[in-house]
Amino acid sequence: MDTEALRGGDPRALARAISAIEEQQAWTGDLIHELAAEEEGQARTHLVGVTGAPGSGKSTLVDALTSIWRGQGRRVAVLAVDPNSPFTGGAILGDRVRMQRHALDRGVFIRSMGARGHLGGVSLATRATSRLLQALGWEMVVVETVGVGQSELEICEIADSVVLVTTPAAGDGVQVIKAGITEIADIFAVNKADLSGVDGVVRELRQLIRSHTQGGWEAPVLATVASSGPEGAAELAEALERHRQHLDETGERGLRASRRRRDEVVELVGAYATGFARRQPELEVAAGDASEPPERLARRLLGRMAAEERNMGSAGAPPGSRGVGDAG
Amino acid sequence: MDTEALRGGDPRALARAISAIEEQQAWTGDLIHELAAEEEGQARTHLVGVTGAPGSGKSTLVDALTSIWRGQGRRVAVLAVDPNSPFTGGAILGDRVRMQRHALDRGVFIRSMGARGHLGGVSLATRATSRLLQALGWEMVVVETVGVGQSELEICEIADSVVLVTTPAAGDGVQVIKAGITEIADIFAVNKADLSGVDGVVRELRQLIRSHTQGGWEAPVLATVASSGPEGAAELAEALERHRQHLDETGERGLRASRRRRDEVVELVGAYATGFARRQPELEVAAGDASEPPERLARRLLGRMAAEERNMGSAGAPPGSRGVGDAG
Repeated sequence: MDTEALRGGDPRALARAISAIEEQQAWTGDLIHELAAEEEGQARTHLVGVTGAPGSGKSTLVDALTSIWRGQGRRVAVLAVDPNSPFTGGAILGDRVRMQRHALDRGVFIRSMGARGHLGGVSLATRATSRLLQALGWEMVVVETVGVGQSELEICEIADSVVLVTTPAAGDGVQVIKAGITEIADIFAVNKADLSGVDGVVRELRQLIRSHTQGGWEAPVLATVASSGPEGAAELAEALERHRQHLDETGERGLRASRRRRDEVVELVGAYATGFARRQPELEVAAGDASEPPERLARRLLGRMAAEERNMGSAGAPPGSRGVGDAG
Repeated sequence: MDTEALRGGDPRALARAISAIEEQQAWTGDLIHELAAEEEGQARTHLVGVTGAPGSGKSTLVDALTSIWRGQGRRVAVLAVDPNSPFTGGAILGDRVRMQRHALDRGVFIRSMGARGHLGGVSLATRATSRLLQALGWEMVVVETVGVGQSELEICEIADSVVLVTTPAAGDGVQVIKAGITEIADIFAVNKADLSGVDGVVRELRQLIRSHTQGGWEAPVLATVASSGPEGAAELAEALERHRQHLDETGERGLRASRRRRDEVVELVGAYATGFARRQPELEVAAGDASEPPERLARRLLGRMAAEERNMGSAGAPPGSRGVGDAG
């Protein structure tokens, strides 16, 4: 890995580093840590999560935000995560279009994080990639996810500030939000505000949020029309800025960073353990033999891993070995 | 746990056992294993997975199948899995209605498997519950999941036979299928066949499948109208029966069972390891201190688990302790 090119902002070096993260190359963890230790201004990175149903106009809204942030001289990295991408292919297509638009601007980096085998994998890769971008001093890192299901929300927990994009057309928008998402979104954008029904959705959302306000932050509900340009996008950028200040003033920003770190460690432990289990030839033999309950076999494999970890010490896998097991 | 009531088919005993599985009570693994050892006719359980987008009419179709199977004297258990249920609440509401309809029939058991904290948890609970129902000799076990996203497909891998329900209205139906799902679905039901466009969807699907046929099974594409009664449902039941025979004749049924067992062990290993990591007080301390890369901390926690596994032996957690860690 050409770390000089990476430090210098070469987009191809960055793309290669992210591919190595996705391939779960064990050395990427140390690389990120090393870069982070050099970088003084890590606190300046604002991690923004943007989620919403397919077709809600997330990407267009993120594009409008990107233009605003570029105008403020900030570098913007967008990680587009689609847990279903092997089945829809949507994210990747959309991102190619976007990438072309920003191809000449080194201050914009857009990357699709596809689902590789298992959701845990995407989530881990996205976590490590946002740490890498932080370490490289990117001011804005946007994690854009499709849908408002649970798995997507898990990915959204990576962010400092979470924006939920809904539309007046999404009939179940408010209902979904009622059912539990208010605790996770910090800002609501009712996009396609040129459609009828927008006032009703905005009003209903505001009432709902008023009854759920916590930690001194009342999530703003903004009407946006991303498709026709920056209408509403400027307000959204301002709301994000206010939320960031709120996080800093209340100390919540540090708490979220700690929680993120804790969640990432737990996820890594799970990934290392399942990777180990998948590599055991015994697993194939035992799979055909139902005489041992799966719970006991799982315990036995953990005991085996125990022995190996003891022999290896806790310094991590040797460079070049794969930290998170097989990619299959 | 009243295992006599469980053996006798008492639905409340069954519901309690499933709750214990969902609560990850360590003894449930041994209970299932013990019951399975008693039961001679386990091979008779046909595990059917039914998946499709919200609104595609999966539940109505499963209801129609249930009536047909009951008419053949088979007991039918339906596990309705909605990974997003904490946010939509949909599955649970629908199942209450269904449960009332079959309340007096001891040969029908319907249960919502909600998402508890993490998708892994639902999938594990669903796996163990279908093993329990097999051990109790239920002839038909249906795992019904919402959506065609990756996480839903993982749950579908629990089944012997997978039915994908789509509709002429779901514009992206064929597109989604094109993008990779053909390898997973064994039977396609184009539901709401009274809507216009059904012939086109059926034709397009059939062509697509012809080019993807593998293992000697050409997945049938059936037009169904579940809402108006059994129209098409009888053909679906027959197609399932044929697929089951195909699995038996080719030996594929045993292969699927082995793969299921292997996947479950791997998932259990991951769940045990993350449960352990979450219980470490050190995790909270380390979360606030970024001086150690998360990858190294994760390795260190695995080393710790190693030591504990050694002390405990590999016989599993003592009864009453929680096998898969904290529920939070």
